[in-house]
Amino acid sequence: MKIDIGERILAANDDLAAGNRELFAEHGVYVLDLMASPGAGKTSTILATIDALRDRYSIAVIEGDIASKVDAEKVRAHGIPAVQINTGGACHLESAMIRRAVDTLDLDALDLIIIENVGNLVCPSDFDLGEHAKVMILSVPEGHDKPYKYPNIFQVSRAVILNKYDTVGVFDFDEAEFREVVGSLNPHAPIFPVSATKGDGVDAWAEWLAERIEAVKEGGSA
Amino acid sequence: MKIDIGERILAANDDLAAGNRELFAEHGVYVLDLMASPGAGKTSTILATIDALRDRYSIAVIEGDIASKVDAEKVRAHGIPAVQINTGGACHLESAMIRRAVDTLDLDALDLIIIENVGNLVCPSDFDLGEHAKVMILSVPEGHDKPYKYPNIFQVSRAVILNKYDTVGVFDFDEAEFREVVGSLNPHAPIFPVSATKGDGVDAWAEWLAERIEAVKEGGSA
Repeated sequence: MKIDIGERILAANDDLAAGNRELFAEHGVYVLDLMASPGAGKTSTILATIDALRDRYSIAVIEGDIASKVDAEKVRAHGIPAVQINTGGACHLESAMIRRAVDTLDLDALDLIIIENVGNLVCPSDFDLGEHAKVMILSVPEGHDKPYKYPNIFQVSRAVILNKYDTVGVFDFDEAEFREVVGSLNPHAPIFPVSATKGDGVDAWAEWLAERIEAVKEGGSA
Repeated sequence: MKIDIGERILAANDDLAAGNRELFAEHGVYVLDLMASPGAGKTSTILATIDALRDRYSIAVIEGDIASKVDAEKVRAHGIPAVQINTGGACHLESAMIRRAVDTLDLDALDLIIIENVGNLVCPSDFDLGEHAKVMILSVPEGHDKPYKYPNIFQVSRAVILNKYDTVGVFDFDEAEFREVVGSLNPHAPIFPVSATKGDGVDAWAEWLAERIEAVKEGGSA
């Protein structure tokens, strides 16, 4: 019975996601759903991505958190519009929340919207928000065994950012094993080693994203 | 409507949790529900806690993960009985899962059961498993701002373990601010700085736990 309820919630979410997807296509704005554990560096990666792309593209951010508005404030202090969603307990964002946030933005003026999902390796992977791509961050201190334990999020991600890569020597992180397991779960997802707070590795990730933004601006499906 | 469904699920869980609680009291076994983000060091902390307490107490571990059995295998390799629960997608453990796992253990032979919950700072905090205490781990690389974003888990925890404390110099972790915010959310919870893989700080945490195991062995409520 719980599964049926869960399926109904997911079906309702998917209908709203389809509406979001049409809206984003009409306005030629690329939408990224960024997922990670708490403290993996989602906000730092967003700020580094903004720095890499802000000369070329007009960007806005939607911040999802259980509580607080500290992340939206950090993004606004960076000179970028940010909408904070507080889920009030829910462990993921849903399409209806995204629609309400998007309705406060001027979509015709935007090329890229980055959605920072709630810090969680489980729930966000099940919810289509109408985005063009889900991308996940794993941070080196979390450990190379995480794909074994949270396979679904690695499978639904179009790319994997391996953040805090500068600490790979501090932790017992086996990058070869990590790449092998991620590759078996999701053979097409590139892995981008990044140190977001230092800027290392951000360019390669930003170029991957820029190619997809261009495809959507040209009217493709990215 | 979703809230009503959620409340019904929580109420059913709470009924089963009460049954678990009675069972644990009958057998004088102390039960700990350990919660943290993915990669915060739950399994390492459990292994260090076992090393600190195994001469005094008989211990078993219940491992909760979306998928895989790697954690149970690590615990068994340490010479301690371990039951693996795979939630198959669910972001937290529930009382019914714990009951099925507990039914495979010899409760009369045990003093302590450590439950490793699914890696998640959100969902596990809502679910009573019949445990004596919920305790959470935050790891230093996750950042000192996490209590702002995930206040509920800090509020329901009887103690907070601050793991990977040996990396406090590597990351920009403001311990004073962390202690202030945790203290405002939960004035009675002690904070134990620990480096689980190196063993530093484990003794103070283990003594806190041993006091509570003793109280339950003596028939108190801990």
